[in-house]
Amino acid sequence: MPPRLLLAGPPWRGEHVVDGKWVGGLLLQLRWVDSACTGGWAPTPASLAPQRDEGAKLARTSARMTPAMISRPSVVALGHPPSTGQTDIARWMSPPAEPVGIRSVPESESRFGLGELTRAALWIWQDRVRTDAYREAIMLHQKFIEGKVVMDVGCGTGILSVFCARAGAKRVYAVDASEIATQASEIVKANNLADKIIVIHGRVEDVDVEEKVDVIISEWMGYMLLYESMLPSVLFARDKWLKPGGLILPSHATLFMAPITNSDRYEGSVDFWCDVYGINMSALVPLAKKFASEEPSIEIVGGENVISWPFVVKHIDCYTFTVEEFKSITTTYKVSSMMLAPIHGFGLWFEVEFNGPAESCSNLSSDSSPLDIIQKKRCRASDSTVVLSTAPEDEPTHWHQTILYFPDPIGVTQDQIIEGSVTITPSEENPRCLNIHLECS
Amino acid sequence: MPPRLLLAGPPWRGEHVVDGKWVGGLLLQLRWVDSACTGGWAPTPASLAPQRDEGAKLARTSARMTPAMISRPSVVALGHPPSTGQTDIARWMSPPAEPVGIRSVPESESRFGLGELTRAALWIWQDRVRTDAYREAIMLHQKFIEGKVVMDVGCGTGILSVFCARAGAKRVYAVDASEIATQASEIVKANNLADKIIVIHGRVEDVDVEEKVDVIISEWMGYMLLYESMLPSVLFARDKWLKPGGLILPSHATLFMAPITNSDRYEGSVDFWCDVYGINMSALVPLAKKFASEEPSIEIVGGENVISWPFVVKHIDCYTFTVEEFKSITTTYKVSSMMLAPIHGFGLWFEVEFNGPAESCSNLSSDSSPLDIIQKKRCRASDSTVVLSTAPEDEPTHWHQTILYFPDPIGVTQDQIIEGSVTITPSEENPRCLNIHLECS
Repeated sequence: MPPRLLLAGPPWRGEHVVDGKWVGGLLLQLRWVDSACTGGWAPTPASLAPQRDEGAKLARTSARMTPAMISRPSVVALGHPPSTGQTDIARWMSPPAEPVGIRSVPESESRFGLGELTRAALWIWQDRVRTDAYREAIMLHQKFIEGKVVMDVGCGTGILSVFCARAGAKRVYAVDASEIATQASEIVKANNLADKIIVIHGRVEDVDVEEKVDVIISEWMGYMLLYESMLPSVLFARDKWLKPGGLILPSHATLFMAPITNSDRYEGSVDFWCDVYGINMSALVPLAKKFASEEPSIEIVGGENVISWPFVVKHIDCYTFTVEEFKSITTTYKVSSMMLAPIHGFGLWFEVEFNGPAESCSNLSSDSSPLDIIQKKRCRASDSTVVLSTAPEDEPTHWHQTILYFPDPIGVTQDQIIEGSVTITPSEENPRCLNIHLECS
Repeated sequence: MPPRLLLAGPPWRGEHVVDGKWVGGLLLQLRWVDSACTGGWAPTPASLAPQRDEGAKLARTSARMTPAMISRPSVVALGHPPSTGQTDIARWMSPPAEPVGIRSVPESESRFGLGELTRAALWIWQDRVRTDAYREAIMLHQKFIEGKVVMDVGCGTGILSVFCARAGAKRVYAVDASEIATQASEIVKANNLADKIIVIHGRVEDVDVEEKVDVIISEWMGYMLLYESMLPSVLFARDKWLKPGGLILPSHATLFMAPITNSDRYEGSVDFWCDVYGINMSALVPLAKKFASEEPSIEIVGGENVISWPFVVKHIDCYTFTVEEFKSITTTYKVSSMMLAPIHGFGLWFEVEFNGPAESCSNLSSDSSPLDIIQKKRCRASDSTVVLSTAPEDEPTHWHQTILYFPDPIGVTQDQIIEGSVTITPSEENPRCLNIHLECS
């Protein structure tokens, strides 16, 4: 069945009804809310791990979704509500005896409740694409890291700290606000690195160390880069603790976006209801469209689903980016369809690079041409840098891609121009939530 | 690496430390809690649909987990907290104009909030194994159904009501407490069955119809049959509305259990941490074991994972079963291992049959021998009945299997006897939660 068009006029030029209002151009006003906005939790079967992700077995067994870590694990199990992070000023005022190598700072504003990042880490550290990229980046910069002081922001199990110590770092401050710090400390000891790695249990904003650091390393990226990301903590650490000329890993991050086509998904989601066992269930089609389009979908799509060159929503230079810039990210775009196809929505994904302060391979912006992006891929292939990509054409990661589906597909012809704007802003209600405003005209 | 044993003495005979207490035999005290116990919700990526389930595409796009329907959908998407079911006594007292074919009863104790079952149904009706079984059962009993009155308890989209109407039912009362009743009514009209199917929006416990019914049909089964099941509503409808000699579909349900081995899963979940990129992370092993074993896991296992004949935990005859019997289901078991293998836990699954009041194919009990079970399979193969099976050796359904993992595997030899008891009781705190107490000695 051919895709039904929402448009009255020519594709992308007509007027659309969205939420009962006539607007010029397509408008998707998405609000991505995590449970921290409302509290609570919900259990889910454990067997739903992404089949294409290597090493997801553990997740299917035990990882659980809990508040405040929505961007981290994506597999959950039926179970008890998680413990909540406890205010622990008392311990700060009068610290009890603790395992060697762990320092405590107040947990009162801890981002993660007891055990939550622990559970997340159990899954997240099985994403080999990501871990391999970090390990390669550390090897690439080994000469810089040797004999230097490193801070690992949000260290989790401490795996990046161990990589840095093994690469010759003189000292590593491994900081995490979650209870995972306890396990990180044990792992450090079990690997005979307690003389090099100091695990600090607390928020990086509360940490007090005795020296400035030469290197900041962090795995801070959330879904579509920015959802529930720890970037603000990395920027804080940079401004407070990084020596001039220091190294930040990753150094650069780029959020991409492109129109996507996904007829199999759309037909299975929406058209399915037109005939179910010979029964006309099209009464469910409006609901199916609503559910498909009212919120971003985290899923894996392939390069074949992407119907134009991607455009750059934001390029972040971690050496210079500020928290202020994070408050509203907006760009216009103009891309050309590579084929005759129905557009079912837009996909978002990101890449991060691991460069020194002066060596960004190519600082992409929303003005970047397709040639810039090809150049970037060539640069990457030359091994002069390490890139961790979550693009549809690359090996899947636990971040998948983020898809903003339209209620109805919109047909485009080959070489047809698709243009508009996209704005991403943290929710005023909760800065960890994102509003996404997408227009096409 | 060989599985590590928890036991001090010979397998299954020693004393075990569980939760810091020495107990004779293995003890798994599981408490399955749904969010209705605590309120709240948690979003999750949408792409985690079980890859082996046919037609799960919609779910990956749009279905969402919400409170009070934990047993229904198993795929969720990031999004807003669901609307909650609203008390609507006012409408009952003074009903407004409503679509033809819908009657309202009070929603004050509605099991499903606004839109929740709707979302669930969007996924659940794509489970073809289940829907095919119901359709075949209706065809098998077509002569009985023709010209008769049917009640569909928890009708959802109304698909079973439509099947019954098409099979010749004189009248069908399609009852659902969820807002899905609105869509069910539209579907009934779109299929020109408004003269036969009366959609009633309300709890079956509150429904008032003008006649007794000849047939009760319901898709009431939850995970491991009983978790969040609607069986009590079916029994209520039977006692209040079913004529003597009437038909109940399904008529019989059997909950099975067997020891399972799953080394791939265990090694990926637990042993994985012993060496991660050359780093000793065994500090995480106790956590991994805890997470793997502290709650039931909903996942798909295969027949090759089952290491003894299953035993019957409970056989339910829907014609005679009472709510009282549901309050504590307990059985002893004694099975023989078919191989030398590590036992990683126990699996639970169920079958339902669609028989008339006097024709149960084989009333299995916990005393049933393997021969009884073979006989049952033969009976099923003879086409004299319809069986919907969620067993590991059969085609996967959205119910998957439910696995109770041990913290540590326990080795058994071929023909070794495994015996003990299992007790399943609804939680006192919330009857929709289950406590599972499992012992082996």
